[in-house]
Amino acid sequence: MTEFSVTAPDGIGEVRPGDDLAALVAHACPDLTDGDVVVVASKIVSKSEGRVVPADDREAAITAETVRVVATRERPGVPPLRIVENRLGLVMAAAGVDASNTPEGTVLLLPVDPDDSARRLRAGLRERLGVRVGVVVTDTAGRVWRDGLVDLAIGAAGLRVVEDERGRRDSAGRELGMTVRAVADEIAAAADLVKGKVTGRPVAVVRGLGHLTTDDDGPGAKILPRLGEVDLFSEGTAEAYARGLADGRGELRAGTRR
Amino acid sequence: MTEFSVTAPDGIGEVRPGDDLAALVAHACPDLTDGDVVVVASKIVSKSEGRVVPADDREAAITAETVRVVATRERPGVPPLRIVENRLGLVMAAAGVDASNTPEGTVLLLPVDPDDSARRLRAGLRERLGVRVGVVVTDTAGRVWRDGLVDLAIGAAGLRVVEDERGRRDSAGRELGMTVRAVADEIAAAADLVKGKVTGRPVAVVRGLGHLTTDDDGPGAKILPRLGEVDLFSEGTAEAYARGLADGRGELRAGTRR
Repeated sequence: MTEFSVTAPDGIGEVRPGDDLAALVAHACPDLTDGDVVVVASKIVSKSEGRVVPADDREAAITAETVRVVATRERPGVPPLRIVENRLGLVMAAAGVDASNTPEGTVLLLPVDPDDSARRLRAGLRERLGVRVGVVVTDTAGRVWRDGLVDLAIGAAGLRVVEDERGRRDSAGRELGMTVRAVADEIAAAADLVKGKVTGRPVAVVRGLGHLTTDDDGPGAKILPRLGEVDLFSEGTAEAYARGLADGRGELRAGTRR
Repeated sequence: MTEFSVTAPDGIGEVRPGDDLAALVAHACPDLTDGDVVVVASKIVSKSEGRVVPADDREAAITAETVRVVATRERPGVPPLRIVENRLGLVMAAAGVDASNTPEGTVLLLPVDPDDSARRLRAGLRERLGVRVGVVVTDTAGRVWRDGLVDLAIGAAGLRVVEDERGRRDSAGRELGMTVRAVADEIAAAADLVKGKVTGRPVAVVRGLGHLTTDDDGPGAKILPRLGEVDLFSEGTAEAYARGLADGRGELRAGTRR
């Protein structure tokens, strides 16, 4: 039998710019122990890091966080939905800019470097409580082809982010070809089942997965985005079609000119 | 504080065609209680339902399961990777046809109707143990833009599949615009952290999320796929571009003919 538990403590109130996240978590989770994984919503990380901008600038904030527009969809009465690659390599609606659970008239940007935020929280918890934990910083995102949002790992420290089963063998003795599990994302998803926007519990502690924690901080969640040449969906269908159509017509014009 | 646990029992051995899944689960989990969620890998559901075909026919099996090809990628030495919509509305590599952990020379198809499989397992557990549980049938899938595989819900019964937070308010009193959580997928992901291909534990029990279970079987996981008009990625970038290019050149040819 294997087992783990996920607990979302009470007692983490509103987080404000400059708040010491390690102090807040240590206070709410005094029983943390080696091998626990502390899962923190990026929202409170961003708040503690003062990543708040005026809401008048929501569209400008999205543009500023955007590295590349992947797809857009017009919507009646509101600005178009923009699915973009942001500066963290995450492909997200609105670049991850968030307007819920923020002070009226403001929006929240993602942390500057969520892996670094995770490392600092991990070091802070070690300093305060003397424990060696893993840390995951989460954000909420939609999925292609699938309804509903799930939480993902956008920052991590002291944790195996992917569990590589290549080279291991299945029960019939054959090598497991391409089985790489995104365990940090699965931990983020599990934690979301007890924390959440409405409940006011932005932190969860996962206990029983100590085999996934590591001594060093590790590579972080920045290894999870997979873009570039292996990305078969680097552009929305409508955008790619339009580009092809323009190129085809361009040949027409070029031919006419000849 | 809120808390839940995820436990993967030992004692579910190899599953064979015709095996009674409810009997196997009831035997391995005699302590099941009302409000538990039983998470079962589709692999053993398929095996119990005899969804095995000869491995010579792997490519033919993928074709048979395919409703629509979304994208393909050539690979050296092996047949092209095909990302397709299958008959369950799931967009997956190889249509969800699985060649690991199956008898040599065979591959496994997904259950014919995983929601129905979930309903039958739920009814069987009620009959055998007198408990009212939720059931999730999972499969493993890759994600666009993100490395690593995660588990998803492809079948469900007795469980809220999505948790609709629209109409609820955040801590600042504003309505949570479009927050629909795919909790069945998050449960599938959580369960994968203790079950798994290598460990030989194809079932997990989630305890503490009884508020997500329901009296009736509910709509099942078939409500999760989101395709059609709202799908901005109905075709791979290369495929959409090629279609646009052909259409643009078609205008050229049409112009020539005139």
